[in-house]
Amino acid sequence: MTAEVVSVGTELLLGQIVDTHAPTMARILADCGISCTRRQTVGDNMERLVESLREALARADIVVTIGGLGPTADDITRDAIAATLGDELTPDSKMEEKLRKFFALRKLVWSDSLLRQADKPASARFVDNPNGTAPGLICEKGGKVVVALPGPKGEFNPMAAGPVREFLSRLQGGQVIHSRILRICGMGESHVEQVIRDLMDSENPTIAPYAHPSEVHLRLTARAPSIEAADLLIEPVHRQIKERLGEAVFGIDETTLEEAVIDLLRRQSATVSVAESMTGGGLGERLTSVEGASAAFVGGAITYQVDAKGVLLKVREETLRQFGPVSKETASEMARSIREKLGTTYGVSVTGNAGPSSDVGRKPVGLVYVGVADEAGCEVDEHQFRGQREDIRRRATQVALVALRKKLLSGQASRHPLP
Amino acid sequence: MTAEVVSVGTELLLGQIVDTHAPTMARILADCGISCTRRQTVGDNMERLVESLREALARADIVVTIGGLGPTADDITRDAIAATLGDELTPDSKMEEKLRKFFALRKLVWSDSLLRQADKPASARFVDNPNGTAPGLICEKGGKVVVALPGPKGEFNPMAAGPVREFLSRLQGGQVIHSRILRICGMGESHVEQVIRDLMDSENPTIAPYAHPSEVHLRLTARAPSIEAADLLIEPVHRQIKERLGEAVFGIDETTLEEAVIDLLRRQSATVSVAESMTGGGLGERLTSVEGASAAFVGGAITYQVDAKGVLLKVREETLRQFGPVSKETASEMARSIREKLGTTYGVSVTGNAGPSSDVGRKPVGLVYVGVADEAGCEVDEHQFRGQREDIRRRATQVALVALRKKLLSGQASRHPLP
Repeated sequence: MTAEVVSVGTELLLGQIVDTHAPTMARILADCGISCTRRQTVGDNMERLVESLREALARADIVVTIGGLGPTADDITRDAIAATLGDELTPDSKMEEKLRKFFALRKLVWSDSLLRQADKPASARFVDNPNGTAPGLICEKGGKVVVALPGPKGEFNPMAAGPVREFLSRLQGGQVIHSRILRICGMGESHVEQVIRDLMDSENPTIAPYAHPSEVHLRLTARAPSIEAADLLIEPVHRQIKERLGEAVFGIDETTLEEAVIDLLRRQSATVSVAESMTGGGLGERLTSVEGASAAFVGGAITYQVDAKGVLLKVREETLRQFGPVSKETASEMARSIREKLGTTYGVSVTGNAGPSSDVGRKPVGLVYVGVADEAGCEVDEHQFRGQREDIRRRATQVALVALRKKLLSGQASRHPLP
Repeated sequence: MTAEVVSVGTELLLGQIVDTHAPTMARILADCGISCTRRQTVGDNMERLVESLREALARADIVVTIGGLGPTADDITRDAIAATLGDELTPDSKMEEKLRKFFALRKLVWSDSLLRQADKPASARFVDNPNGTAPGLICEKGGKVVVALPGPKGEFNPMAAGPVREFLSRLQGGQVIHSRILRICGMGESHVEQVIRDLMDSENPTIAPYAHPSEVHLRLTARAPSIEAADLLIEPVHRQIKERLGEAVFGIDETTLEEAVIDLLRRQSATVSVAESMTGGGLGERLTSVEGASAAFVGGAITYQVDAKGVLLKVREETLRQFGPVSKETASEMARSIREKLGTTYGVSVTGNAGPSSDVGRKPVGLVYVGVADEAGCEVDEHQFRGQREDIRRRATQVALVALRKKLLSGQASRHPLP
């Protein structure tokens, strides 16, 4: 079974916004075992949209449209689908009632142009949209299927992941394609591949590595009659990889490294504080992006200019003069100081030169020191990164999280084995 | 003159990565006065790629392909273009020499598969790629044009913005479409529209507003024989808008709000420090993302847990008890304290409840206080935002930058008029 995705909107076509919905839809189709063979983007132009829907329907079993279901004059997808399928478009009184209720409940101003959203092509049924006014459509005619989804993110995502995914999965019947992503930190891509090379010949699930800045993701993809059956195929391979890579696997699917770190801190009833120089608050920002971070993250100091390191963290003038602000010694004093000040289990410091100029104490651009202090003292790692300022700063927060996680795992090994 | 863009790559088609190149290309086409009428995404499949190139060439004057020019077996765009145009594909000895030199210079390991990149369809000429090994292609045949660009970001962007843009602009000859974006903060979209409503009827340049979180962008787009001529059309409208909106216009095109703020600080030889609670370092992170921030940004305190506000910023226990950590009073003490500690011209504080739970001193989710302290005292603004945790935190850093900018502008009015 094949599908094509058609994204509708002049602002998409002209590149004024980036299309993230079509990739989401493509992943859902893959999960349902349906091959996405082509994607198109067309503007709010009736003739061209109908042409591209006709072509897509001639090639594929299923066509999914995204966008153009709203109430304004440039929302033409509903009409274009009706024209393509040769369907009459008639008002649906139940949907009209629903729309009026939606507006009354939220005390929004009603306009009769909204009624267009209650129009239904003859072969269509509506897909409920609890997050907005434009219902989705599922049309089945002559052995072909057209699914229409609204464009706003808060409406598209739940409808695509919910009723539309369910419909497509049922439609496909036989097989689903289901993936699990293992997230790995503290190991390079080639190192990971070397350790699991023999496993990578696996055909179901397949194993595909993806390199990200200071992370490697392994995508395990299985084909099976159901998501549950696919999970059963993935499980033993996941376990084998976990046995070989050990704690380098920090999470699955959407788990971020900061989530994994906050989770470890909370499970150990431990707390952390940060002392940041070149990252300017970026490490604190990542840790506090996690819901519930306040149970583990206490606070920190941003000591961007050299003097601030003295004022806020009492880094000794002699240390700064002798070794410079970008040094192992400064990183160590920063981490110890913030830990002591805020009385946390761990103190993490980052100091380095993000560039582009290399005048920070004449240290090279990309040189970064990360310190992790606990009651026993402070360990400092040295890193040398390449790339743009933005990349270097991002990698610096990444290796700081990796270092903290390593410390957390080494401390707990005997106390709280990970599940 | 019309164009279509074809993005090539199975990882794009399956939604494993988001396509940002096609929007970039669409904007370049628009700038050159060429209408982009459709975009397609196809996988690394010869038959389907040739089919989609044939269709695109039948409809449009120009087809631009992105990706699939590399040395591996799944890089098939070069072959597909040759097949579509009925061109022979022959090795180019000069390009082969260039490739070998590129590898020798960088001490990279040579492999004969790299020679595929020296193959040239008969009607093509190469486009130089100083950032990688895959040259681009420009083919002109039978009144049609095919342009092929490599996929890696560091190779695609300079080639698209440089020689390809120049070629397309020359090809179109007559007219270019050129845009300038005015970035506005501290005013809502409807307020902006109200103030410039009569100007919005302008036809050349056209004026289109786009709402972003706590920013409004006005895109002024002119059609003219050259970019310079377009700029001359845009200039007077830009000036009129500037006269009406005044200092709400903080920058043009890609200027970020943090860049505008650091620039103002530097021009006033002023410095700033931050005291952050719910943003966890995000405000410092934004300010230090600007190159050269160290001339103006000194440092700050991240006081995420309540106690940290006492320890690092000496916020009085009575204030915290009586008014709570999310209050005007706490915001004021935070901003004054960090300003004094670090001896900066300004101190900026952010405290609030980012959610999702509303247990921060029983204050509602989305309530945010922003304080800006200077020698005269501290002004605190109250905001109530809706949305997800991530949105609320982002908007909090945004309004903090807006408040600091307002203070900077009010202070300088009599001293240093803006150019």
